[in-house]
Amino acid sequence: MSKHHLPKSVERAITELSKLPGIGAKTASRLVFYLLSRPQERSVELGEALKSLRVGLASCEICWNIAETNPCSICADDERDPQLVMVVEEPLDVVALERTDWTGRYHVLGGVISPIQGIGPTDLRIRELLDRIEAPDPGITEIVLATDPSLEGEATALYLQRQIEALVKAGRTSKKLKITRLARGLPVGGDLEYADELTLTRALEGRKEY
Amino acid sequence: MSKHHLPKSVERAITELSKLPGIGAKTASRLVFYLLSRPQERSVELGEALKSLRVGLASCEICWNIAETNPCSICADDERDPQLVMVVEEPLDVVALERTDWTGRYHVLGGVISPIQGIGPTDLRIRELLDRIEAPDPGITEIVLATDPSLEGEATALYLQRQIEALVKAGRTSKKLKITRLARGLPVGGDLEYADELTLTRALEGRKEY
Repeated sequence: MSKHHLPKSVERAITELSKLPGIGAKTASRLVFYLLSRPQERSVELGEALKSLRVGLASCEICWNIAETNPCSICADDERDPQLVMVVEEPLDVVALERTDWTGRYHVLGGVISPIQGIGPTDLRIRELLDRIEAPDPGITEIVLATDPSLEGEATALYLQRQIEALVKAGRTSKKLKITRLARGLPVGGDLEYADELTLTRALEGRKEY
Repeated sequence: MSKHHLPKSVERAITELSKLPGIGAKTASRLVFYLLSRPQERSVELGEALKSLRVGLASCEICWNIAETNPCSICADDERDPQLVMVVEEPLDVVALERTDWTGRYHVLGGVISPIQGIGPTDLRIRELLDRIEAPDPGITEIVLATDPSLEGEATALYLQRQIEALVKAGRTSKKLKITRLARGLPVGGDLEYADELTLTRALEGRKEY
């Protein structure tokens, strides 16, 4: 008795989808059969969008964000202060921060230092960051370390702080360069009762006069 | 101050992905940035697989399952008993049932009757099922109603049962046609303690001598 197999194209779509993080074989099947139940345009448009994901994409060689131009629209925007640089892990962090009123530029590291995953300082855009800080033009005055408040994000921030301080000490950049870190504390809309110990400790440390 | 936007191709991939059920804008962004962090082949292969999902696909005009041929490999397999037909909602149900030792054929309804979603009997392959039952060749002897044990699955099974019985009464098919329903009971590996009332009631009703 021969067993029934799924059509090859269906099998292939399930296999490819289930390579995505957080999408197992079951979710992938459900998505593919959902697409099969929709008009063909739906799967063709999705497929086309993913296929041409990299078309017209560039890396900004100033901030290393993904962009359509090099330099990117942020680095090319002369209304933004080139002396203020926010260091982030990923392009998605830039998207999130652009919802705030930050008027400086960015530097996208491309990840965090993570010995477990075999990611060291040389795998990130750290050398490029230090070069930007050393450059007399535009003369960066503040570096905001905005890596995640996670174990690896904190370690990366600490590493960067030390590297930048070494530059300052060696006289290779202005003595007045400020290094800051995004505040840790209670998230707005959060519930104090459910906040973890570390978050509460940071919130207490960072308390301000009312 | 102009705000930063994501590159168009990235935006488009996020929009298309978030049209899938259960994938919101956040998950879609995460998936797209994951793809951007991988070699380009990954997103091209995924895109190609989705784009060509329907290529070479046919509907089997006997059982209405998706297939590469018409009739499908199951309906064309003469080692399978054409007189036994299992009625299911979706092609994925066939995949699941093919893991059992079922040796009959299938009939894929393409959904369930759901007044809330505006799906009536004429939107499903019910007419086609009744035609199969009426046909003297191969002379179906058993119909297994294998719709989901959900509210709509049960209602659809009940509707089918009545339609088929009407055919039997009108003498348009064999008087010996058996209509069966998959057993309801405790799932194997499940925990009696956590079973809901209805499942337990069904399990009790369906108890067998040991």
